[in-house]
Amino acid sequence: MTREDARQLDAADPLAFARERFRLPEGIVYLDGNSLGALPAATSARLEQVTAREWGDDLIASWNKHDWIDAPVRIAAKLAPIVGAQANELLIADSTSVCLFKLLGAAVRARSGRRTILTQRQNFPTDLYAAQGLADLLGLELKAVAADDVIDAIDSDTAAVTLTHVDYRSAAFHDMPAINKAAHGAGALTVWDLSHSAGAMELDLDGSGCDLAVGCGYKYLNGGPGAPAFIFVAERLQDELRSPLQGWMGHAEPFAFDDDYRPAQGIARFLTGTPSVLALAALEGGLDTFEGVAMRDVEQKARAISQLFIDEVEAGCGREVRLASPRDPTQRGSHVSFAHSDGYAVMQALIARGVIGDFRAPDLMRFGFAPLYNSFEEVWRAAEILGQVLETREWEEPRFRQRQKVT
Amino acid sequence: MTREDARQLDAADPLAFARERFRLPEGIVYLDGNSLGALPAATSARLEQVTAREWGDDLIASWNKHDWIDAPVRIAAKLAPIVGAQANELLIADSTSVCLFKLLGAAVRARSGRRTILTQRQNFPTDLYAAQGLADLLGLELKAVAADDVIDAIDSDTAAVTLTHVDYRSAAFHDMPAINKAAHGAGALTVWDLSHSAGAMELDLDGSGCDLAVGCGYKYLNGGPGAPAFIFVAERLQDELRSPLQGWMGHAEPFAFDDDYRPAQGIARFLTGTPSVLALAALEGGLDTFEGVAMRDVEQKARAISQLFIDEVEAGCGREVRLASPRDPTQRGSHVSFAHSDGYAVMQALIARGVIGDFRAPDLMRFGFAPLYNSFEEVWRAAEILGQVLETREWEEPRFRQRQKVT
Repeated sequence: MTREDARQLDAADPLAFARERFRLPEGIVYLDGNSLGALPAATSARLEQVTAREWGDDLIASWNKHDWIDAPVRIAAKLAPIVGAQANELLIADSTSVCLFKLLGAAVRARSGRRTILTQRQNFPTDLYAAQGLADLLGLELKAVAADDVIDAIDSDTAAVTLTHVDYRSAAFHDMPAINKAAHGAGALTVWDLSHSAGAMELDLDGSGCDLAVGCGYKYLNGGPGAPAFIFVAERLQDELRSPLQGWMGHAEPFAFDDDYRPAQGIARFLTGTPSVLALAALEGGLDTFEGVAMRDVEQKARAISQLFIDEVEAGCGREVRLASPRDPTQRGSHVSFAHSDGYAVMQALIARGVIGDFRAPDLMRFGFAPLYNSFEEVWRAAEILGQVLETREWEEPRFRQRQKVT
Repeated sequence: MTREDARQLDAADPLAFARERFRLPEGIVYLDGNSLGALPAATSARLEQVTAREWGDDLIASWNKHDWIDAPVRIAAKLAPIVGAQANELLIADSTSVCLFKLLGAAVRARSGRRTILTQRQNFPTDLYAAQGLADLLGLELKAVAADDVIDAIDSDTAAVTLTHVDYRSAAFHDMPAINKAAHGAGALTVWDLSHSAGAMELDLDGSGCDLAVGCGYKYLNGGPGAPAFIFVAERLQDELRSPLQGWMGHAEPFAFDDDYRPAQGIARFLTGTPSVLALAALEGGLDTFEGVAMRDVEQKARAISQLFIDEVEAGCGREVRLASPRDPTQRGSHVSFAHSDGYAVMQALIARGVIGDFRAPDLMRFGFAPLYNSFEEVWRAAEILGQVLETREWEEPRFRQRQKVT
């Protein structure tokens, strides 16, 4: 493929209009939107509005006047078309890890008597830590099996199955409908982590029979560093489930100041404490970048653009790197990993050249493609630069081996 | 007291310089900083810096380049002189409710075998809800007694005593050293909620023998609506305690991506998920308003200014309202409640006149005094306006009875 071919793909891209919704720095190719989404162009002004006009001028009255109180459900409703759920099944709250604890806790209580939480080995670490923390607290077993063995491991002792939909290393994803079906067949509930799929793939949480899910606001949803997470609870389960993390914002009448907890009706019962209004505003800005965007287009572009990257990298430097993601684009999320024995240093050299990806131990160089703002041409260019970095062996410079705290 | 007398107090106020650190709207007297602190003058620019320059320009590299990764401990260190603790005993994280669950969960696990969490009836509701949620999850008993009966109720079955230091209704506060001593005598741990004292009183968490504490970032600390909370864990306990809410940010090596959880050394083990960098930046702006401020001056002004308000209100309309806070200023935090049978409507009428307090059911009008920005003169004026509202009975207008969602 030539650069001109890539330009042709951009010219025909139905999502090309969306790049203007972001403020991307000049001169870099940002392929880490799967870790921290880029800054939406409207977010600064929105934050200033909430800070100066709402908090500053209207102070405490803003809870009513600017409807801060309903922001967690109002903003979550914007996620409905992105993840394929009803608006009343979604909520913005806390962090992904805390939300996972809440939902897993609710799930195992609803399946009391069953002693196992089933997950996958090498699931995203924080998911394992949160589940293990809950299991330790309650005397349950966290059983971690290989990805392909999950369905066979579901049995009558399984309270909940918790998996990350798209693997953060390889971008391989689980067969969500099949796992939901197997779990339900055994009487278990499913708790999905959508952090690496929401905003990059066409999801259908309701149609695929999901029970519960959490996801990250700061990756493909562009909500800003450490943005609050989201929670999905299927409407059919909401009355039955109780969050173990009770707080006043999840009370039926928070401002009655009752001593006794009565959970709110519906999804709001999964709120706990007072949410950060500033963080919610930034996340709303991120969700607004999806306005008028068809998730089918997003998924198709994700596949096409990551395939272009794989093809170009393998054509240019195929002997030096090994594809560590599924070769079949219909089996991948929207990032691609290549293994290289000096992957850390190669990635640092690449970043010094203005192509931003990241590194996951022990040897993976990870490249994320955000269909709303990455162009085919810049991804073509990134592959070319990777080829140059490998050919010149400039990554061997000592400075590229210096480990930083965050990789 | 005359208005001129109040002006004299402002002229002699050692904290008068701090009002310039806030952007207060013209023409109002804001007496609700105990619910939502005012906007610091520097916060808008700081948020724009973090949003446009850090997130926007430096993207993922900001975790290292702008030290986002250490923000929860770096910013927490600014709390040390405000609450009387060592910097390494403090952390910014989550919401107050979630933090309380973490610390109570850690406490009861460290005192396993004991079956009771002791608290006070009419403790702040979210504290009761969080504690009840934990107790239900673990099959423990949450025992709530009258405030004066707490010490006598501590026994060998008490795992933890959890109390809000300053009562959100009356501003009465508990004898922290005495309760810590009684708890330790019985082998129990204490978990304090400092939401209504941090930033308004002179605290000495270490000197008074506190074990664990949480507090709110958006009241007297001026961190913005729904700001993250803070956690205090006495250094002597940090190795022994484990948070039940495990997540990657509390791992000894978050970027090793291990399957197994190993808690970080020190206070960082109480982190869970990725924190909101924007919310942290705003909270830092709030904490910076305390720079160079002596907490002894803060406490003295809190007492003097609330006493002025009580004296003026009682002199002006003493027959129509009843003081619902301790009369002794050394027994109060930095807010004052007056009861009135139509308190809701009176408060709405007062707000319409530009004096902002709030209402707590069933009949309390609550007035908070933020020593960093409230002046004696404006508090004198607020008492005068309250007298006028009561005298004219303008609060009887039907519009002042319309209940809003948030009171």
